[in-house]
Amino acid sequence: MTPPRSTREHIMHSALRVIGEHGIGGLTNRRVAKEAGISLGSLTYHFASQRDLLRESLLLFVEDEARRITAIADSLAESVRGLAEAAAAAEAALTQMAMGPEELGVYEVYLHSARDPELHEAALRCFAAYDRVATTTLTLLGVTEPERVARHVVALVTGSQLRRLATGADDAAGIAEGLIMLLAGTDWSASTG
Amino acid sequence: MTPPRSTREHIMHSALRVIGEHGIGGLTNRRVAKEAGISLGSLTYHFASQRDLLRESLLLFVEDEARRITAIADSLAESVRGLAEAAAAAEAALTQMAMGPEELGVYEVYLHSARDPELHEAALRCFAAYDRVATTTLTLLGVTEPERVARHVVALVTGSQLRRLATGADDAAGIAEGLIMLLAGTDWSASTG
Repeated sequence: MTPPRSTREHIMHSALRVIGEHGIGGLTNRRVAKEAGISLGSLTYHFASQRDLLRESLLLFVEDEARRITAIADSLAESVRGLAEAAAAAEAALTQMAMGPEELGVYEVYLHSARDPELHEAALRCFAAYDRVATTTLTLLGVTEPERVARHVVALVTGSQLRRLATGADDAAGIAEGLIMLLAGTDWSASTG
Repeated sequence: MTPPRSTREHIMHSALRVIGEHGIGGLTNRRVAKEAGISLGSLTYHFASQRDLLRESLLLFVEDEARRITAIADSLAESVRGLAEAAAAAEAALTQMAMGPEELGVYEVYLHSARDPELHEAALRCFAAYDRVATTTLTLLGVTEPERVARHVVALVTGSQLRRLATGADDAAGIAEGLIMLLAGTDWSASTG
């Protein structure tokens, strides 16, 4: 169940879609207002600067995604037994996650952040949120020392998704194998459950 | 030893720097010509379209980088013993690799490729080249089944570098730990050498 979106949240999702479709260089107030179906005045009332809009859009997206991933992990924890099964479920979930304009928009903002140090803090918080979700997921699945592994699961998934975007692959094939390799060396208690 | 650059190559490196500094949206013929120190006429003589310029810049960059990584791997293979030592050497090499405008430019072109299917082929060739370099490196270092592992080493490094760009981290700290986890499950013959 997604709670009803505020105008602010609606604007932020619209901004990410505009960025995904036109690149950061194509992000204009006019396009965001049109995509969100609001007036220019309403847009500038909610976000005084483009940087504020980028920063908050990034954080909102990651927060939403963290909630989504945690829900998937919760449901997996009840049914999944063993590393191979968990990795296959993760690959299926990633394949189902559309890599649409909003997802592309987030990656664009990450790169834009490389040019704008005032966005570093937001990017740091995003990756910290991904680390936390990965830690929670790995814990639910019975991996020991989950916080040590989490950062590398995030890197593996991020890198695989970037390749998927760049090459136009329409699935997440291969991620399961990578996750299995990464986790094979860890103590995987669920595999005996 | 880097061979002397042709005007074409010089233009391609200049284009990646312009993209890294201004984003894809800021890529104009005028800026590339200025960065390369050539006339607008010379630029359009060498590259008829922006897409050609992007495609060839991507391939040139990856080719150069593949050569660089292979040279590092060659020198490592002679001295490095064991997984931990190899991973630490890889982390040091990645930390030394500047994540400057050209590197950022390449990531920008990867994302732009998500919007332009005519660039997918170039992106596919880039990632295939990285896979080959990783396979060669893992082979030199004595990892068995190197081609199965290579793709995931590339994903782990790509994802870690994206995080580094986004958050402004000035080193590649933590990649060694990830590589060790990824390779720990593989048969690592050098560790006994």
